[in-house]
Amino acid sequence: MADLELIRGLQTAADSKILLLVLDGLGGLAIQPGGPTALEAAETPNMDRLAAEGIVGLHQPVAPGITPGSGPGHIGLFGYDAVRYQIGRGVLEALGIGFDLQADDLAARGNFCTVDANGRVVDRRAGRIPTEKCEELCRELQKLQIPGVRIFVEPVREHRFLLVLRGEGLVEGVAETDPGHLGSPPLKPVAESPEATGTAEMIGRFVDDAQERLAGHEPANMVLLRGFAKLPEWPTFPETFGLRSVAVAQYPMYRGVAKLVGMDAAEVGAAREDLFTTLERVWPDYDFAFVHVKDTDKAGEDGDFDRKVSAIEGIDTFVPALVGLKPDVILVTGDHSTPAALRSHSWHPVPFLLWASTCRRDEVERFGERWCLKGGGGLCRSEDLMPMALAHAERLAKFGA
Amino acid sequence: MADLELIRGLQTAADSKILLLVLDGLGGLAIQPGGPTALEAAETPNMDRLAAEGIVGLHQPVAPGITPGSGPGHIGLFGYDAVRYQIGRGVLEALGIGFDLQADDLAARGNFCTVDANGRVVDRRAGRIPTEKCEELCRELQKLQIPGVRIFVEPVREHRFLLVLRGEGLVEGVAETDPGHLGSPPLKPVAESPEATGTAEMIGRFVDDAQERLAGHEPANMVLLRGFAKLPEWPTFPETFGLRSVAVAQYPMYRGVAKLVGMDAAEVGAAREDLFTTLERVWPDYDFAFVHVKDTDKAGEDGDFDRKVSAIEGIDTFVPALVGLKPDVILVTGDHSTPAALRSHSWHPVPFLLWASTCRRDEVERFGERWCLKGGGGLCRSEDLMPMALAHAERLAKFGA
Repeated sequence: MADLELIRGLQTAADSKILLLVLDGLGGLAIQPGGPTALEAAETPNMDRLAAEGIVGLHQPVAPGITPGSGPGHIGLFGYDAVRYQIGRGVLEALGIGFDLQADDLAARGNFCTVDANGRVVDRRAGRIPTEKCEELCRELQKLQIPGVRIFVEPVREHRFLLVLRGEGLVEGVAETDPGHLGSPPLKPVAESPEATGTAEMIGRFVDDAQERLAGHEPANMVLLRGFAKLPEWPTFPETFGLRSVAVAQYPMYRGVAKLVGMDAAEVGAAREDLFTTLERVWPDYDFAFVHVKDTDKAGEDGDFDRKVSAIEGIDTFVPALVGLKPDVILVTGDHSTPAALRSHSWHPVPFLLWASTCRRDEVERFGERWCLKGGGGLCRSEDLMPMALAHAERLAKFGA
Repeated sequence: MADLELIRGLQTAADSKILLLVLDGLGGLAIQPGGPTALEAAETPNMDRLAAEGIVGLHQPVAPGITPGSGPGHIGLFGYDAVRYQIGRGVLEALGIGFDLQADDLAARGNFCTVDANGRVVDRRAGRIPTEKCEELCRELQKLQIPGVRIFVEPVREHRFLLVLRGEGLVEGVAETDPGHLGSPPLKPVAESPEATGTAEMIGRFVDDAQERLAGHEPANMVLLRGFAKLPEWPTFPETFGLRSVAVAQYPMYRGVAKLVGMDAAEVGAAREDLFTTLERVWPDYDFAFVHVKDTDKAGEDGDFDRKVSAIEGIDTFVPALVGLKPDVILVTGDHSTPAALRSHSWHPVPFLLWASTCRRDEVERFGERWCLKGGGGLCRSEDLMPMALAHAERLAKFGA
């Protein structure tokens, strides 16, 4: 794999445009032995035409056998090695609910939990309290004050919340307070380096104050914190690839990951059509657009094979409109597989199609896992897709004389 | 990929011989949608027979999406990771014109440029002066003297020249003097480390003296220097692979890259037949021969699809003579793709065929990109080919007990 520095050094100015269409969780499995996957079963005449004119292949997120979460899945598609470029838990939690993290913020993933009279954890998830209760308790904790920092406590779902400390001099490197098992008291937030001492003290004070405030709110009478993280300082996507870049995504997580790497995020309405009307609106101002479709993943997570087929077929009807925008390169793929048969993300390689006038055509004329296996794109790593797309857009100079 | 140390440790003595035939820029694209590439269109009964009896595949130079120059393209074929083993610009320039670099030499790529009365660069290429003018000015600069070093100033083409300083204690790590844009004076050659101070001073003196000598030679009244580099100290090819190795190549660049990794370079006449008579002559003395054919690349660079087809067909007629030398392994491939449709090197994977009695045959019976996609060699990295060739020559021991 080429590293980001190498790619950046080879940037060439061009007018070409690249469209990345991500059907979340696109890859699948058959639901009966020897049967088709959802993508194979779907009638996709428009994507099939792109597949026939371009190349297809499979990409492997993270590493063989690894099932990626949404963050690493997209980080790979954006050209970053997902093992090297890991997003901290706290930051992922913030992205997931669309919290607008600032450069100085320290974020953590929080759980409400239950402790007994001796302070020992007896339920790490506080009986999975309803989200409404979580919201109420977050409002309580939001009132806590710690000198020198601003506190944000945002509900996520059930017992989960986001804690953000905003202030100067906050550092990562504070150990989690979750003991990981029952019967022990929560751990102290220990500084893992001398620089983190002040930060650890502030977190310790928050935990103490939170426990006091939560007294009587059983089962949610204590908090556990982990994944203390700040926004990473990575090479940005627009700088690395030389592309004015925009995300067109309806879910906070995907807008968030895109913003994390420096893309703009367009305002999008909630209907599926809004994705495409928004893309049409912002397209003239950008060289690269990432369009994110969630339905495919949701159907897979729900174990609903037929709905996944329908979701894919629904997107296919929009493909002519995408082609009508005249992108020079179109890349259609998923961030990972979500087979309905497994009702979850999976490690299986993900089908992709890459369409451009500079493709060396393969002989594949349909878009689907079994055909991708015979395609000109081979079995590559997710992070290879962006350099390939850039190359086909004729935006990369020769390496060496 | 296996690294060079690993391969070296597994060397086994054998009498077997390996022939690497490089058709420069072999890979291509169709010139009409769905049509054949030049290799697919060419009538190549002899290479097809080798393909049928051996395995075929595609190799990816440098990394997916990356278009290699001639240097990195060959470095990969020779088994070296082209990103890790980068040849400095100045050294490449020396190889390209066949300058015999010594271990202590410091080479740089030079441009004649134009500066205005205030010393600001107004044309970084001095109006692309004719090569004859470049030769004349190089003769002038060749007369400059700097205590402690010998100076070589060799014309390359148009405004480009090669500067070599020969002497003890010269080090790399001097910043380029090209400001990269117009309107600023050339930069001073700044030492990037304390050790480079003396070298930077010598270069500064050369630049000052050159400017004085070039006064009145507008538009070529100043020089810009970049890519200061010495011969790299790499593991050699003969030591790494345990092969007495020779290059049979007509162009200085390819002889130069081969010598850079420690191969011998045979004397070759200019006619195409000379390649093969030379190979025949030196073959008994070596275990490995690298034969380089340039015509395929030139036709691609010229955008001449039909001439590329003819060049491939012409080489095919020599294949029986190659087989007649009884090599144990024959590897036929290119260093990169040069599609006539793009008139340049490109990033597309490169077809290869590997013929040996130890091949596990695939079902492919023709040599061409679309058939290679289905071959037993898969889509591999360029630097994997040498270990594969060594293995098929039964020159690699078992790894681990």
